[in-house]
Amino acid sequence: MAEGSDDIQALIAQMARLPGLGPRSARRLVLHLIRKRSGQMIQLARLLENVAQGSRECLTCGNITDRDECAICADPARATGELCVVEDVADLWALERGRAFRGRYHVLGGTLSALDEIGPEDLGIPGLVDRIARDRVTEVILALNATVDGQTTAHYIAEALAGSGVAVTGLAQGVPIGGELDYLDDGTISAALRARRRL
Amino acid sequence: MAEGSDDIQALIAQMARLPGLGPRSARRLVLHLIRKRSGQMIQLARLLENVAQGSRECLTCGNITDRDECAICADPARATGELCVVEDVADLWALERGRAFRGRYHVLGGTLSALDEIGPEDLGIPGLVDRIARDRVTEVILALNATVDGQTTAHYIAEALAGSGVAVTGLAQGVPIGGELDYLDDGTISAALRARRRL
Ligand SMILES: [Zn+2]
Ligand SMILES: [Zn+2]
Repeated sequence: MAEGSDDIQALIAQMARLPGLGPRSARRLVLHLIRKRSGQMIQLARLLENVAQGSRECLTCGNITDRDECAICADPARATGELCVVEDVADLWALERGRAFRGRYHVLGGTLSALDEIGPEDLGIPGLVDRIARDRVTEVILALNATVDGQTTAHYIAEALAGSGVAVTGLAQGVPIGGELDYLDDGTISAALRARRRL
Repeated sequence: MAEGSDDIQALIAQMARLPGLGPRSARRLVLHLIRKRSGQMIQLARLLENVAQGSRECLTCGNITDRDECAICADPARATGELCVVEDVADLWALERGRAFRGRYHVLGGTLSALDEIGPEDLGIPGLVDRIARDRVTEVILALNATVDGQTTAHYIAEALAGSGVAVTGLAQGVPIGGELDYLDDGTISAALRARRRL
């Protein structure tokens, strides 16, 4: 046993399985933490335990929360009639960091995928259509990734809402702020060109 | 609050402080863990808690262990008379992974440094000299990093042991200038150890 104790070896193995880490970075992290074992490491353990025990999905929108309903769904000021549909919670967090959207969300938890046999029911799209009618939503913003599966999903939802009187919109495609043309893929450049606007 | 709950935000902040991580990778890790909250996340929390509570430094050599004396110091088969001096526990782990060394270790916990005002007492070098006499060590292998401070420390220890009758050796071939042991592959470390030379 090279690394101290069975628990230390098990901890390194667990850390090494995390996305973006590997055996070497796991070993370095664990040694760093052991050096700070009475402070940072205990705190991290307690926070992980608390979050693991206390987190659940918001029953209304699918956001991660520590209650039945997340802070956004519980906030009456966010009943703007705008509903932003995202693939996963990471996207919801990214939009909230942008502070530009003041309505509510719906987290699909994935995209339609023929290959992975993920259909509309798996993503709760019938429930989403019900929610849109029930909550008097006036605009659905499909903030899905610009991938094939993301766009397939956006089209499916747009069709499901056709004739409902709800406006269905999507994020504008174009050059990101600070983005250099030379580094963008061709699809992005073409889309930005097609959507060009008068200055 | 963009990210779910106060605990989730605190967890992301703690993770972002770890070496090699930042806010983005911390968010990704936390979301990944929350998705696996009833399995992997709970396990990780418990292991961190156990290791934080159970780890200490071996009273004899400074290795990380969960007992007063580490498994290497407690193993009579490793009383070979060879003592390998390393800067920190990461280096000891790296040498153990190489499986070429069957003696015991001494972890300095750093190197001599005029700049940082780290002197021989701070590294317990007088205690090391005592240990070498007490434990009937016949060869001291100075497996220190090939940095200026590492080599200064090696020379200091070699001088402190001059006239004691103990052979003092150092890792020879395979350690690149400026290289740190923890970053070397196992084969290089083994080769350097086998080719150690008298200083
Ligand atoms: Zn919600
Ligand atoms: Zn020991």
